[in-house]
Amino acid sequence: MPTCNNWGVNGIVTVLSDFGTRDGYAGAMKGVLCREHAAARVVDLTHEIDPGDVLGGAFALAQAAPCFPSGTVHLAVVDPGVGSARRALVVEEKGSLFVGPDNGLLTLAARGDAWAIDRIPPEWDPHPTFHGRDLFARVAGRLAAGAAIGDFSTGKVDPIRIGWDAAKGDEGEVVHVDRFGNLITNFAAAHPAQAIAIGGTVVPRVRTYSDVARGELLAYLGSAGWLEIAVRDGSASERLRIVRGAKLRARR
Amino acid sequence: MPTCNNWGVNGIVTVLSDFGTRDGYAGAMKGVLCREHAAARVVDLTHEIDPGDVLGGAFALAQAAPCFPSGTVHLAVVDPGVGSARRALVVEEKGSLFVGPDNGLLTLAARGDAWAIDRIPPEWDPHPTFHGRDLFARVAGRLAAGAAIGDFSTGKVDPIRIGWDAAKGDEGEVVHVDRFGNLITNFAAAHPAQAIAIGGTVVPRVRTYSDVARGELLAYLGSAGWLEIAVRDGSASERLRIVRGAKLRARR
Amino acid sequence: MPTCNNWGVNGIVTVLSDFGTRDGYAGAMKGVLCREHAAARVVDLTHEIDPGDVLGGAFALAQAAPCFPSGTVHLAVVDPGVGSARRALVVEEKGSLFVGPDNGLLTLAARGDAWAIDRIPPEWDPHPTFHGRDLFARVAGRLAAGAAIGDFSTGKVDPIRIGWDAAKGDEGEVVHVDRFGNLITNFAAAHPAQAIAIGGTVVPRVRTYSDVARGELLAYLGSAGWLEIAVRDGSASERLRIVRGAKLRARR
Repeated sequence: MPTCNNWGVNGIVTVLSDFGTRDGYAGAMKGVLCREHAAARVVDLTHEIDPGDVLGGAFALAQAAPCFPSGTVHLAVVDPGVGSARRALVVEEKGSLFVGPDNGLLTLAARGDAWAIDRIPPEWDPHPTFHGRDLFARVAGRLAAGAAIGDFSTGKVDPIRIGWDAAKGDEGEVVHVDRFGNLITNFAAAHPAQAIAIGGTVVPRVRTYSDVARGELLAYLGSAGWLEIAVRDGSASERLRIVRGAKLRARR
Repeated sequence: MPTCNNWGVNGIVTVLSDFGTRDGYAGAMKGVLCREHAAARVVDLTHEIDPGDVLGGAFALAQAAPCFPSGTVHLAVVDPGVGSARRALVVEEKGSLFVGPDNGLLTLAARGDAWAIDRIPPEWDPHPTFHGRDLFARVAGRLAAGAAIGDFSTGKVDPIRIGWDAAKGDEGEVVHVDRFGNLITNFAAAHPAQAIAIGGTVVPRVRTYSDVARGELLAYLGSAGWLEIAVRDGSASERLRIVRGAKLRARR
Repeated sequence: MPTCNNWGVNGIVTVLSDFGTRDGYAGAMKGVLCREHAAARVVDLTHEIDPGDVLGGAFALAQAAPCFPSGTVHLAVVDPGVGSARRALVVEEKGSLFVGPDNGLLTLAARGDAWAIDRIPPEWDPHPTFHGRDLFARVAGRLAAGAAIGDFSTGKVDPIRIGWDAAKGDEGEVVHVDRFGNLITNFAAAHPAQAIAIGGTVVPRVRTYSDVARGELLAYLGSAGWLEIAVRDGSASERLRIVRGAKLRARR
């Protein structure tokens, strides 16, 4: 167990899910957070992850969570395996805690120690289709209120990790398509690509959108720390008819 | 009037509407809440209820509100009758208060005493198309700040109730279709159904998603307390082409 | 510089963007706000502005911001010119501050003094495609924490203003189409129109929705302070196939 417990000092609990909001399920999780920790400061990250898209949820969590102050508790639930034998986790990263299912959702954002949530009060009896409300939100709320990880865990585990590796050579792929139709690649910031070939198109690398004319394609170092492909004031995804997983080739 | 007034002690005010967020109307309601009660802790439930779908709003509110601690104030506005003679209400449920129009929106979640909001300062003069901002948010903010119900009401009324009854026999119906395409039915938890027939399909009852193979239909006791029909890692609504109101038959 | 600094006293920071929520970008901005100002009370206005729709963002901000108490800090980012030479701004309005790009987004809501953000610590080094996270959120968080505008600005500037003028005669236009399909016009509250002609249809002016039958068109003074055209329990935009910019003629 960590000897230093400073999470919860700021009272912030972020919430991410694939629940949407219109059915009240996301609201139910937030209610439980407030019930378990009366002073919680709940901040929505998103509830619009595509249903069951664990990788998409992991991407969003990895964008947002590092911006929060140390001591934040992050509750994240994209959980197609709910009710099965998949484990529940608390993962630490730089003094912040992440609570959610053991399916890779947490581990792009949190690469530190991971504990199995395997020690919950029997009276909780979580509903087999809604651990977000009955298990994860309760644990997250209590951790934010100052509980110890050991209150809910008997020990560390090796979590499932998903995601992508940085391209080692010039063969890469699209790892995320964002709302603007920008294509996030697995070419890391230090990659020396001068252009990226995608389908039959070669996209030159520049600094930012305004370096090309409106409607033109560009490649650039994106804010997530990876090379991206975009259309200025447009959608590269629509223009190139590209979805996650498309193959790329860097040109030096 | 209730002799005990403990709402507002936690400062939480939840907000539910069919306004979406992109026009700023939901933001306007939250601004008024903050203006009326500087220390309000505003928590969004949803603003994505289908326009005018009172029953859908009632379902969402009934999922989320019971999870919040006692003393919460819930502001809910799905109000196609705004500006007409429909009444405005405060309804109590287990020490929490619900504020909104008298059209059934509140009464799935709140089954306690109801008061008409019929005593507002003349200078408020609510705009006839936006009581959410000019009436309901003001009352909710002030109640959260510790005002008495009697400050806004001359007495109790019998509110409009909508929704569904638990199926008494084996004839039931779909009362809600959620984001995942799960079909929530009006067969209550205690119903002895071993399977549910819908259209030409008979769906067996199991415990949770992982009890069937991916892509298979299942019936199970849902987290809302009703039997549900789902497709594991898929959408029962799309598979079966089912919308709210579809008829069902339980098999024992 | 203003001699009186009362913003931040309430700790409220609102956030508006065209980022959606599913990529984590909006969450990242909120994380930075919390990092810069541990006690910030973050309130989402919306992240669902159409990508790059500065005018749509300005409309939403102008609906919501005036409802918040004086002293609020409003962070608004719809920023297709990010990374170019476009200026960054702080604009004051009745004791509240607005932080965002100088493209007209802020100036429907805030018509007071404007300062250029031209004095930021060199180590901030904002990413050229994400000033929302690396510049605007930082400035907004620090202003909410009590920083002076002069900490980030060397002086006042004349901001870009967009939007519409109130129709002076009987020729008007649709300036916004809202979620309900209501058409907001540029006929001001005092305009003596008795009806509005749109396409081949003449829509009579009444007080509110319930003054016409379900499915009927109506014109009325909307909650935004402009005449609007709606269909009771329906969508005027769909019925009339109207988008922003459509021409109108008032009938007296």
